[in-house]
Amino acid sequence: MYPSTLHRVSVLGSGVIGTSIALALRRAGIRVALSDRDGDVVAKAELMGAGVALAPDDPPADVVVIATPPSTVAAVLREAQARGLGAVYTDVASTKARIVADAEFAGCDFTTYVPGHPMAGRELSGPFAARADLFTGRPWALCPHPLTPAGPLHTVAGLVAACGAEPQVLAASTHDRVVAAVSHAPHLVAAALAAGFAGADETMLSLVGRGLQDATRIATGDPALWCDILEQNADAVAAVLETVVRELSQAAHALRSLDHAGSGALADLLVRGNRGRDRIVDTWPSRRVEKASLPA
Amino acid sequence: MYPSTLHRVSVLGSGVIGTSIALALRRAGIRVALSDRDGDVVAKAELMGAGVALAPDDPPADVVVIATPPSTVAAVLREAQARGLGAVYTDVASTKARIVADAEFAGCDFTTYVPGHPMAGRELSGPFAARADLFTGRPWALCPHPLTPAGPLHTVAGLVAACGAEPQVLAASTHDRVVAAVSHAPHLVAAALAAGFAGADETMLSLVGRGLQDATRIATGDPALWCDILEQNADAVAAVLETVVRELSQAAHALRSLDHAGSGALADLLVRGNRGRDRIVDTWPSRRVEKASLPA
Repeated sequence: MYPSTLHRVSVLGSGVIGTSIALALRRAGIRVALSDRDGDVVAKAELMGAGVALAPDDPPADVVVIATPPSTVAAVLREAQARGLGAVYTDVASTKARIVADAEFAGCDFTTYVPGHPMAGRELSGPFAARADLFTGRPWALCPHPLTPAGPLHTVAGLVAACGAEPQVLAASTHDRVVAAVSHAPHLVAAALAAGFAGADETMLSLVGRGLQDATRIATGDPALWCDILEQNADAVAAVLETVVRELSQAAHALRSLDHAGSGALADLLVRGNRGRDRIVDTWPSRRVEKASLPA
Repeated sequence: MYPSTLHRVSVLGSGVIGTSIALALRRAGIRVALSDRDGDVVAKAELMGAGVALAPDDPPADVVVIATPPSTVAAVLREAQARGLGAVYTDVASTKARIVADAEFAGCDFTTYVPGHPMAGRELSGPFAARADLFTGRPWALCPHPLTPAGPLHTVAGLVAACGAEPQVLAASTHDRVVAAVSHAPHLVAAALAAGFAGADETMLSLVGRGLQDATRIATGDPALWCDILEQNADAVAAVLETVVRELSQAAHALRSLDHAGSGALADLLVRGNRGRDRIVDTWPSRRVEKASLPA
């Protein structure tokens, strides 16, 4: 759909996402240079077959992918652009508006930078948890700045396609509101549910089934990285949580009173839960294909 | 472990759980008679190979399994015992203390009744959604009344084993507190999360990934049946929800303020979420095997 003419990509940051991108690009026959502030981690990514360590005399890459924690992206981008590491730059952080603001403030060049976010992840971290197929069929948000020309956007869309993912173009602020609802707030809800079992006794654990396991799966993940993500998208996440709190407070109140109105409120929540769940499942992955549209 | 000497079981109620039990018992070579207030549903269960319709002149069953909605169990049990349908009776409803109280009030015979609850389910309902392996390796709670002798308890444990499940003996009140935490409250939390997508637009749905899908899977299920379940276990479920509400309110407040204390509170929740998740996963299914103990 977006035929890739990429020959050489540099990936800065060799965690699970950076290394998975590198593996996917290698599989597509693209040369990949790796870099990380921790040389050990780069060595592990090399062992995975993700590419070779970035060398000082390497020619500029077609695309530089910044796969470092959200709060570091603007500074890493600024330095990479100053060093002329590539023709086009993108990142993979799961918040966008704050990073764009930081990059504006840092004086980054938006004519070569396309903010991005692949909607895939693993509960495990580090290069050894990387997988070449992590992004297959998944959406990958691209949030071009008003200053970003079509050329770099199409280049990064080609990288997304080379990873097997489906580019979705949307505004940074829209992206953040959407990921607060589909990812960031659900992470905290799962954490709150799971936290109730931190000190659970054997009796409590003896009846755990697959339902609770699925409902809490996303509660896994590095707390420090997640704090960084959540703080970068604080207001949007808080707004979703406040809605969930209101729903659950009403449900608890209905259960405590159990009059006719209480039963009605419970039934209403369950029906809306059914309806929302239907929409969530309908969407994925079929509806997405027709939505993969880029400005011409 | 509990060698089954069952020859003939009657299952009252041919929904997904009743029919799945019937299929599992048929697979174990046991004769199964089926009954439901809706004859059409029995015909469907027969088509699935779950047994044959209960006939008025059938001899008493070794065990009668009551697989009707929670609020109907006591009345169905009372009538089944009055008609002498079996030697031993059990049920599969997901609450226990209220049903035991209703059965006491209805004058049921506790010397032949062992309250039970298989910890497995499907999002789909009706006999056509039944599966013979639904209970394989899953816990199945048994909550004998102080008046229940060991004999009937072992008979029902044999039925549980014949279904491939693992019997867990615990008090009815403990059972209800545990399932509130591992099943009933999580169902409402998932519903609250999913309800936010009932009116979601295409943009919101375009970035939905597997995380949200897993977190909301248990939001599916018949609202009327779930209202019945939740109302039978109202206080225990409300208590868990109130804890989740407190956690999420604090998280929302931390995100709105984002001072040093706020960051600390977020990190604390995420760390406890990790720890709880580890316990939830550790437990299942390995730890359960050694816990399958019955009084001699």
